[in-house]
Amino acid sequence: MKHPLETHRAQAAAILESWGMPASTAATTAEILAWADLHGIESHGIAMLVEYDVRRKTRPINMKPSPRLLRDVPVAALMDADGGLGHAPARQAMQIAIDRARSAGVGMVSVRNSGHFGALGYYTTMAADAGLIGIATTSVFGIRVPPTGGRQARFGTDPWSFAAPSADGRHFVLDMATTTVASGRVRNKIVEGQPMPPGWGFDRHGNPTRDPREVMDGGFLSPLGGAAESAGYKGYGLATMVNILSSCLSGATLITDPMHSRQPWGLDVGHFLMAFAPGLFRDPAAFEADVARLSDTMRATEPADPAKPVLVAGDPERAVRDARLRDGIPIGPGLARRLRSLALETGAAWLLTPVDLSEVVSENIAGLS
Amino acid sequence: MKHPLETHRAQAAAILESWGMPASTAATTAEILAWADLHGIESHGIAMLVEYDVRRKTRPINMKPSPRLLRDVPVAALMDADGGLGHAPARQAMQIAIDRARSAGVGMVSVRNSGHFGALGYYTTMAADAGLIGIATTSVFGIRVPPTGGRQARFGTDPWSFAAPSADGRHFVLDMATTTVASGRVRNKIVEGQPMPPGWGFDRHGNPTRDPREVMDGGFLSPLGGAAESAGYKGYGLATMVNILSSCLSGATLITDPMHSRQPWGLDVGHFLMAFAPGLFRDPAAFEADVARLSDTMRATEPADPAKPVLVAGDPERAVRDARLRDGIPIGPGLARRLRSLALETGAAWLLTPVDLSEVVSENIAGLS
Repeated sequence: MKHPLETHRAQAAAILESWGMPASTAATTAEILAWADLHGIESHGIAMLVEYDVRRKTRPINMKPSPRLLRDVPVAALMDADGGLGHAPARQAMQIAIDRARSAGVGMVSVRNSGHFGALGYYTTMAADAGLIGIATTSVFGIRVPPTGGRQARFGTDPWSFAAPSADGRHFVLDMATTTVASGRVRNKIVEGQPMPPGWGFDRHGNPTRDPREVMDGGFLSPLGGAAESAGYKGYGLATMVNILSSCLSGATLITDPMHSRQPWGLDVGHFLMAFAPGLFRDPAAFEADVARLSDTMRATEPADPAKPVLVAGDPERAVRDARLRDGIPIGPGLARRLRSLALETGAAWLLTPVDLSEVVSENIAGLS
Repeated sequence: MKHPLETHRAQAAAILESWGMPASTAATTAEILAWADLHGIESHGIAMLVEYDVRRKTRPINMKPSPRLLRDVPVAALMDADGGLGHAPARQAMQIAIDRARSAGVGMVSVRNSGHFGALGYYTTMAADAGLIGIATTSVFGIRVPPTGGRQARFGTDPWSFAAPSADGRHFVLDMATTTVASGRVRNKIVEGQPMPPGWGFDRHGNPTRDPREVMDGGFLSPLGGAAESAGYKGYGLATMVNILSSCLSGATLITDPMHSRQPWGLDVGHFLMAFAPGLFRDPAAFEADVARLSDTMRATEPADPAKPVLVAGDPERAVRDARLRDGIPIGPGLARRLRSLALETGAAWLLTPVDLSEVVSENIAGLS
């Protein structure tokens, strides 16, 4: 079933409020989750509520946080997010960075003691919408990636985003994990009974493998580039950079710290959010015209497959957004049932399509036959 | 033969001066070339003089440039490098960025109308040595890489460097092309008669290939990540980012512009150099201790091959540096002869091991037998 953006957002807000989150914080968090679903980034959308629910039951998450600035100078600030989810403080941090970029040319905000903050592209797009270059990084929870040549996991997906405004409004928005792929795609290969393409993962001994079962059975995801000979050290280096910016700068618990994700005061995720003005260097209109020109040349490149035109970072998400603004945002029956359970548990309003919970049972039985 | 760093540097300076470069500019350029050879980055060392010689004979390169600042605010500057080689202006630009980072917390310098500037790690290491985080990008000449899904080359190796200071002095220095590998490694596979690992290149139709001859025969190098299914769009996105920072910000000729590398006034390469202070956010000593701790955990990771310990970006180059400071910097006979020819042509002093130019002939004859 598909739902209008407004219903989608209101449903997420209702569940978050039922967890004790103040209405304004819930509205911001729901908006950022809905932005991800609207742009086709379902891995960071309303489905995250299921994971947040698990975490809030096992780890301290402050549902009424009061983020505050610990340091504050014209071009930078350090924020303590007070142990809540990361969306609202990260948006506030990027807004501070944008304000500083407007007054001083550049603004950098480092955030500690935060939580998962959704899709990075949301924050860098804020900067691009303001005519600024935006950069965002975050530390993560899951540890699935060895350094190149190693056979112990040290990193996660450690994502990075960079956005730049374009004269035609089609901003360049790169939002990428520093792994080759996320674990969901490895699981899909198991379901399909197919080998993985080279470069996706390692077995438990740290050797490259194309068997997805070996990755999920004590093995590892590979850093972008895969094995050493295919430049996996570059993905490993980018992951290290992301952790330096997110955690070493802010003082958040290092991903390599034994207390990572176990601190008594909260999840202690770190973020880095930056904005700066092209007008520091050139006429901003000339800059944006060059970004548009560079992008248009990419789009005009002869494609290897005539049915698949060459795209620029941000194009695929904009195409999904336009379709979903028109047709609504789809939520599959499995996710709808899980969200319905969450709403029932805390008495949150149910705004999406009615779901028959008995389907869960009949589906499980069908799965056994 | 191996030569002391000082001899190596003096030889490069002598050749550059014989081309009309003032002594101080030649000394800076030679120092940066020698730094690359000292750290094992031979692709960006004294061997570049051979290529610079070809370029100076076919394209305007100003050997007596006077770089000047076109814009200048507390956190940023725009430099016109006046059409010369890039080393001296890029070092001056990074020094300005470092000075601004010390006074205002952050400094960003955009450079246009420049040329090849050697190894990026030199500039970001300047920042790390000053206790700052350093970032550097540059536009490039050669166009060998299609955007993901395309079959026309649009990008080059488009490199990126990020450095951060570590408490133990072993700074984190990531210096990476945004391609999987450089073309030299593809050529080596042809020489060895071996297939390439997956992900290195595409044939002339834009399809992945493991035959290195197909890459060199009208084909393409692949962006980091290789084909689309192995996340090549990430390398493509990083290459676009590098061009936005290097060229769109500075106003240098875009790599996609028909006049790229053909401008009547010079090579018009663009750079971006940035430094910022961890002390904006935290006690700098605590930051550097965290970088050291993160790095040490990587080094302590159990290796897949017991003979190959896990390294951190910057470690391999430091190991080579230590050996070459002790034993000297090797220059092979082929390169020595080409440098000797350069020196003879312009009457530059010859400071390296005596080279018998007749060896070229006898070697060629041997090659025929």
